[in-house]
Amino acid sequence: MANKLNVTIWNEGRHEKMSKEVGDIYPHGMHTAIAGGLSVDGASIRTATLDEPEHGLTEEVLADTDVLLWWGHMAHDDVNDEIVERVHKRVMQGMGLIVLHSGHFSKIFKKLMGTTCDLKWRADGEKERIWVVNPGHPIAAGIGEYFELPKEEMYGEHFDIPEPDELVLVSWFAGGEVFRSGCCYTRGAGKIFYFRPGHETFPTYYDPNVLKVISNAVKWAAPVEREAPTYGFRKPLETI
Amino acid sequence: MANKLNVTIWNEGRHEKMSKEVGDIYPHGMHTAIAGGLSVDGASIRTATLDEPEHGLTEEVLADTDVLLWWGHMAHDDVNDEIVERVHKRVMQGMGLIVLHSGHFSKIFKKLMGTTCDLKWRADGEKERIWVVNPGHPIAAGIGEYFELPKEEMYGEHFDIPEPDELVLVSWFAGGEVFRSGCCYTRGAGKIFYFRPGHETFPTYYDPNVLKVISNAVKWAAPVEREAPTYGFRKPLETI
Amino acid sequence: MANKLNVTIWNEGRHEKMSKEVGDIYPHGMHTAIAGGLSVDGASIRTATLDEPEHGLTEEVLADTDVLLWWGHMAHDDVNDEIVERVHKRVMQGMGLIVLHSGHFSKIFKKLMGTTCDLKWRADGEKERIWVVNPGHPIAAGIGEYFELPKEEMYGEHFDIPEPDELVLVSWFAGGEVFRSGCCYTRGAGKIFYFRPGHETFPTYYDPNVLKVISNAVKWAAPVEREAPTYGFRKPLETI
Amino acid sequence: MANKLNVTIWNEGRHEKMSKEVGDIYPHGMHTAIAGGLSVDGASIRTATLDEPEHGLTEEVLADTDVLLWWGHMAHDDVNDEIVERVHKRVMQGMGLIVLHSGHFSKIFKKLMGTTCDLKWRADGEKERIWVVNPGHPIAAGIGEYFELPKEEMYGEHFDIPEPDELVLVSWFAGGEVFRSGCCYTRGAGKIFYFRPGHETFPTYYDPNVLKVISNAVKWAAPVEREAPTYGFRKPLETI
Repeated sequence: MANKLNVTIWNEGRHEKMSKEVGDIYPHGMHTAIAGGLSVDGASIRTATLDEPEHGLTEEVLADTDVLLWWGHMAHDDVNDEIVERVHKRVMQGMGLIVLHSGHFSKIFKKLMGTTCDLKWRADGEKERIWVVNPGHPIAAGIGEYFELPKEEMYGEHFDIPEPDELVLVSWFAGGEVFRSGCCYTRGAGKIFYFRPGHETFPTYYDPNVLKVISNAVKWAAPVEREAPTYGFRKPLETI
Repeated sequence: MANKLNVTIWNEGRHEKMSKEVGDIYPHGMHTAIAGGLSVDGASIRTATLDEPEHGLTEEVLADTDVLLWWGHMAHDDVNDEIVERVHKRVMQGMGLIVLHSGHFSKIFKKLMGTTCDLKWRADGEKERIWVVNPGHPIAAGIGEYFELPKEEMYGEHFDIPEPDELVLVSWFAGGEVFRSGCCYTRGAGKIFYFRPGHETFPTYYDPNVLKVISNAVKWAAPVEREAPTYGFRKPLETI
Repeated sequence: MANKLNVTIWNEGRHEKMSKEVGDIYPHGMHTAIAGGLSVDGASIRTATLDEPEHGLTEEVLADTDVLLWWGHMAHDDVNDEIVERVHKRVMQGMGLIVLHSGHFSKIFKKLMGTTCDLKWRADGEKERIWVVNPGHPIAAGIGEYFELPKEEMYGEHFDIPEPDELVLVSWFAGGEVFRSGCCYTRGAGKIFYFRPGHETFPTYYDPNVLKVISNAVKWAAPVEREAPTYGFRKPLETI
Repeated sequence: MANKLNVTIWNEGRHEKMSKEVGDIYPHGMHTAIAGGLSVDGASIRTATLDEPEHGLTEEVLADTDVLLWWGHMAHDDVNDEIVERVHKRVMQGMGLIVLHSGHFSKIFKKLMGTTCDLKWRADGEKERIWVVNPGHPIAAGIGEYFELPKEEMYGEHFDIPEPDELVLVSWFAGGEVFRSGCCYTRGAGKIFYFRPGHETFPTYYDPNVLKVISNAVKWAAPVEREAPTYGFRKPLETI
């Protein structure tokens, strides 16, 4: 792990093809923009999209993935349940998962959270200011006290998620709402980070601070060396 | 809510019919033993079992349930997915859920936790000593520093659950293992308590301390008065 | 406990005497305004202030207090360390503590948190909108999705506190900041709630939503029936 | 930070001099045994003891310390309050702190926890089996499912600490108790790990698993790159 970190960036990849507005911002897809902007020493980055065979997430690809990024929106239901199980199994084993923006409603995120993951929204392109509420957290490294995105979709509370294990970022929106925008979880042996920004009609994934947060999250979510726990029947260790 | 609390005790209810050993201990089922032993002021208690129509968990029953108890083991897969969704929806709305013993592998618990919920086990009937690690918690009220069960199944760590919001009880087993035996969660507006003891071949649900913990948990998991949050599109509250 | 809840509202009580602006808003002190606005069934409310003997917090008063409220600002250092120890001891035993606004820098809050409790501030009297991020929590009962205070002091992140056990409220400020405004902790057997609003130059403690939150918090922080744990040397429970 | 990690191992250092039994096990002190057994790439290790000037913890030493280990027992009260403040300040800034065994009653640990940190104990030299309850955690890397110490002092619940941010290890004792033996916290920007084993009359700090846990904890507690947050008065970022 010290020298190599395999990152797979998964993107639904449809908005970019269907909408000129989105295609103009992300001509090669959001996954490609993120791949180009990540800065993680030793990372080997690949991408995968919904319309590839097995959504690009074959057993082989996942077995070889240390951290998976997930962006989805209009086609959550088109993601095959078997692939969702496959991703879930890898998270349990320790694969990191970073869920981006509208991925809050993805099958895999809802399965991992156990809640509806619902929220309020408004896509008017207003100012978002993202505050660091946990400045000692590695995901906040190098971010400063806050950063701004001039135009973003609003997501507002209540966000129906389990209380995060660690809350790192909280958003202020010009329209009057707040949102828990950077949320850390551990599920099984896997680390999960939900990161709010990234509406497809804004150039958010070119923003240096957004890319810095994602890069930090990739490093944070990397699996640690471990022996897999075993389960099932056990003989006693002491005389009973 | 102050004067009335509707409790539904759900039990798979098959071991008791299929095994003379179990039937001798719980001639009317574990659900009936628990119902008889609960001590919750103002509680109205009903039971429901797997082999009733809709598993006894109709929309009407669930709509009228404040706290649901769940015991299952050999027939988790026979629980209809639609009923699981129905229970899940009610937990999101605020219904309390108390999951007992082998219910750790029930569909509803796994769905709410997002993890495998796997563990180690051994049904040799050894001594379990359950320690209170959070003596100020309402679920520990009146329990003392620990209590013992002379014969129980062992469940051992690692227990693959999310880090509990509050850990109340930890078990010591004569055979050498430990287990997080009393685990609190909030999911949506619902409170969830996992409570370890209760193997079907031991008279655990007649134990006064076990019944005290379950009674305390029912009170703790009761829904609070609230306005349901709303989700979806919102107009701005400020000029943007 | 079911029928009686002894609440003590502690206030520094100096701003009201020294400043005409504050005295005009709170002619009998903030403690009196809060006492008048609390709505908790069965509560017996008394007040205490810094300049009384032993700050009004004698051993007898504290022994007879179930929930203590604390407002301080300009005279934190004048609070006797012995009284702080006395309050701390009672929190360990299960007394609830609600720390208001500038009480974030009180000796007792810093002692319980273990951190600096520092923050950003600005007393320009701007709009604060307080969002509920945990709508199933009893402290949020009856509040709705948010409430507004037309003029308040701003407190901004980073707020240097331990990650709250439960985060209930997050503030949006017109000037562009956010703040974790309703934070729950358990320390020893005592429940602690930090609630942000309440600058002395604004009539915040007459606001119905503020009073509702404080009333809810008093109920939430009430001690539960328990046997006090014991510590120190123990003989073995098993043969070693 | 990538290439260098300054570790300071602080030990009270008196038992070793006053007791032949302890001195025979740790002729150069427990700090020296731990220093010799740590395996952390890039770590530069120094030691400090109570009876050195400023307890060996000058401003210079602490400013140059990334992770501090703390063992104390019989002389907690001899630790100067000013030095405690100095250590506390560094933890707030991000210095990691690993508190060992009887350090649970040290001034610095109690100050950081805000609770009494009391527990049950028995120094009969019984078997302790330490179970991993969070196998994906970096502090558990390479430990397996459990490890055993043939003779240790017993510490038993209730342990009066705040609910750990992450619970990694739980101990089983032959005499019948359990204990939360590996507890993670973040306070300010600093990471804190409490690790239970290490009674002075047993050769615990030569045990490979104990040393592995401590080595892992040192790596986990290392500070992350960050900009220090600022506090105090702020001008508005938006027009109010």
